[in-house]
Amino acid sequence: MSELQPITVYVHEAGPNPYKVIIAAEELSVPYKTIVVKDPKEEWFAAINPNGRVPAIVDPNTNITLWESGAIVEYLVETYDKQGKLTVSDVASKWQLKQYLHFQMSGQGPYYGQAMWFHTHEDIPVAKQRYNEQIVRVVEVLDNILKGKEYLVGDKFTYADLAFIPWNRVVEGHPILKANVWDKYEVEKKYPNYVAWQRRLVARPSVEQAYKGW
Amino acid sequence: MSELQPITVYVHEAGPNPYKVIIAAEELSVPYKTIVVKDPKEEWFAAINPNGRVPAIVDPNTNITLWESGAIVEYLVETYDKQGKLTVSDVASKWQLKQYLHFQMSGQGPYYGQAMWFHTHEDIPVAKQRYNEQIVRVVEVLDNILKGKEYLVGDKFTYADLAFIPWNRVVEGHPILKANVWDKYEVEKKYPNYVAWQRRLVARPSVEQAYKGW
Repeated sequence: MSELQPITVYVHEAGPNPYKVIIAAEELSVPYKTIVVKDPKEEWFAAINPNGRVPAIVDPNTNITLWESGAIVEYLVETYDKQGKLTVSDVASKWQLKQYLHFQMSGQGPYYGQAMWFHTHEDIPVAKQRYNEQIVRVVEVLDNILKGKEYLVGDKFTYADLAFIPWNRVVEGHPILKANVWDKYEVEKKYPNYVAWQRRLVARPSVEQAYKGW
Repeated sequence: MSELQPITVYVHEAGPNPYKVIIAAEELSVPYKTIVVKDPKEEWFAAINPNGRVPAIVDPNTNITLWESGAIVEYLVETYDKQGKLTVSDVASKWQLKQYLHFQMSGQGPYYGQAMWFHTHEDIPVAKQRYNEQIVRVVEVLDNILKGKEYLVGDKFTYADLAFIPWNRVVEGHPILKANVWDKYEVEKKYPNYVAWQRRLVARPSVEQAYKGW
């Protein structure tokens, strides 16, 4: 796809969601460049995303501006994954991919994000416990789904798996969630299907490349 | 579509998300029947949705079982909206619909849900205020987007608007959020584009029909 112009991906110094877009672009060999947005509430960026959040993209090949990481991943797949590398072909499985993407967007990201928020603001034990337990609940649901399976849908890596990577990494890799969730709730010992899946996902070259930084 | 068998929609006594599915089915004249799930954590229901949440559907016409309200709405539209009643035709606008659906799923639902949770559990003023303010932030974002517009995308009612209806209704209609957000933050006075949009959405016959109860 060397004829493509690079897609601009607006990212942040921290925060997991832009990585979904970078990993997808790496997987599909779509050229991109990153712009680090210091303050996504600034007026110039509100013109790109009135919700004031990253990621957002501008694709000069199609003149499309888009925000919300779930929508961007779907867009990259539908526009640039002509060989179906990150998708499946049968109709029922295709809807499973959408289902898991929405589960990640509504059921993983927001709860994990609230856990981080309450661990880094005023000390409210009830709230911390609530969100720690929500993370463990999501991990347990994924562990059950992954029983006897290597990936969520269709025995192959898809964009559904991909979407879970950034927050999965935070729970094991960020000191706060490592101590308060990963270690405290013995994730590694209790949820082996989940852990094996996570190891499989982060071992992909696309993920290694994405986390080299921007 | 009288040749269609009714889709089974699993719902709950309370909770806004199943209404998205019911409203979409009403809009598209897709036959359905509802089953009220007393406890979505029960084993029989875990076989349908291992995440233990409603809505979920089983469509006997396609043999597809699906959960996550965002995915179900997309499924109903792609499968049964052959005339494009709830969609738009140009590619850029089509991606806007996905973007707003993901915004609703990840940016409206979870925060509004956390507000309700903290207002109905132990009294933690910091948490209540956080989520009240998150609701107002989302309302303000929508109000800005809706400036000079009747609907989110393409000058017509689409599934993107539809997805926001149930939680919009709760903020104005549930006594807790009515007092703590709608009245306290003067939503009606300060966010006229948003309020006019909401009035337009809830006036649809499909919405009236959906809220007659199951």
